[in-house]
Amino acid sequence: MRVLGVDPGLTRCGFGVVQSGRGREVSPVAVDVVRTPPDLELSRRLLRISDAAEEWLDAHRPDVVAVERVFSQHNVRTAMGTAQAGGVVALAAARRGIPVSFHTPSEVKAAVTGSGTAGKAQVTVMVTRLLGLAVAPTPADAADALALAICHCWRAPMIARMAQAEAAAAEAQRAYRARLALAARTSRSGR
Amino acid sequence: MRVLGVDPGLTRCGFGVVQSGRGREVSPVAVDVVRTPPDLELSRRLLRISDAAEEWLDAHRPDVVAVERVFSQHNVRTAMGTAQAGGVVALAAARRGIPVSFHTPSEVKAAVTGSGTAGKAQVTVMVTRLLGLAVAPTPADAADALALAICHCWRAPMIARMAQAEAAAAEAQRAYRARLALAARTSRSGR
Repeated sequence: MRVLGVDPGLTRCGFGVVQSGRGREVSPVAVDVVRTPPDLELSRRLLRISDAAEEWLDAHRPDVVAVERVFSQHNVRTAMGTAQAGGVVALAAARRGIPVSFHTPSEVKAAVTGSGTAGKAQVTVMVTRLLGLAVAPTPADAADALALAICHCWRAPMIARMAQAEAAAAEAQRAYRARLALAARTSRSGR
Repeated sequence: MRVLGVDPGLTRCGFGVVQSGRGREVSPVAVDVVRTPPDLELSRRLLRISDAAEEWLDAHRPDVVAVERVFSQHNVRTAMGTAQAGGVVALAAARRGIPVSFHTPSEVKAAVTGSGTAGKAQVTVMVTRLLGLAVAPTPADAADALALAICHCWRAPMIARMAQAEAAAAEAQRAYRARLALAARTSRSGR
């Protein structure tokens, strides 16, 4: 499975592609950070990020895109920009029919370091080690994008099992409701 | 000036087109609400909103798009979805070279009701009156989209004056720095 991890942001947007192998094997394919100037109009910054996302999707043809789910940040304005950048990346994937999976920062940290509260430096160290990189990826947004991709590779089987279980539960509930409705109709017509 | 106002949202996204005339004259062109099902994958919901935005832009060819600027909401998850919906609308406009202007809810309320803390019902009443509509637009997202468009029509001259003043100040500062640099070079070469 080939995963494009994206650490969204207006000023710096990290892109990282990882290929998963057997078990927990992961290997690096590409990583970079796309920047947009803060003095550019917001809609034009989003356009640049969208164009970059389309280039990465077309160049690396990932099976899935893993984007950081933004819950809250100290700066609300920054959080909104981050959400908007993630939104246009998800849109570019949806246009190509590529599924998008969102992971929270603590899920990503827990996956690569074993602790959901690990620091940025620790994430970079683990990403460098897990991918067997000679040099640590910089800036942190680049390492975070790779961490997101690794996190998805490892969480994907569990997410798939959960989706299957949910679908089975929904189907069971549907069948139960259908039986109830049939019983009600039968008892009415029997009167 | 023709303005497309957008009240962004994943569940309901309001679109409203208003044409401005002389002074504070505003007339209604079109209004509607686009919905996406909550059980659809986030990236596919964004794709539907993006498609709707493109249809509205192509059908009404606005001179500018006015989008609500999200600062905070009680529910962070909703706020992020709102920001992402607004982001893909802004992106669609940027792709067509149409400028996007963001207005805060209090700026919109102040523009159409005179009070930045007006309630939703008050906004709907004023939008209905200002546009001479026979029936109040529903749901609130439709009225809010029209209010955003009206707000932009009225704030645009002020925004343009502020941009001119900022550009003039930046130019004056640039000229001042150039003079300083020239003076420094002259004094050095004079030694």
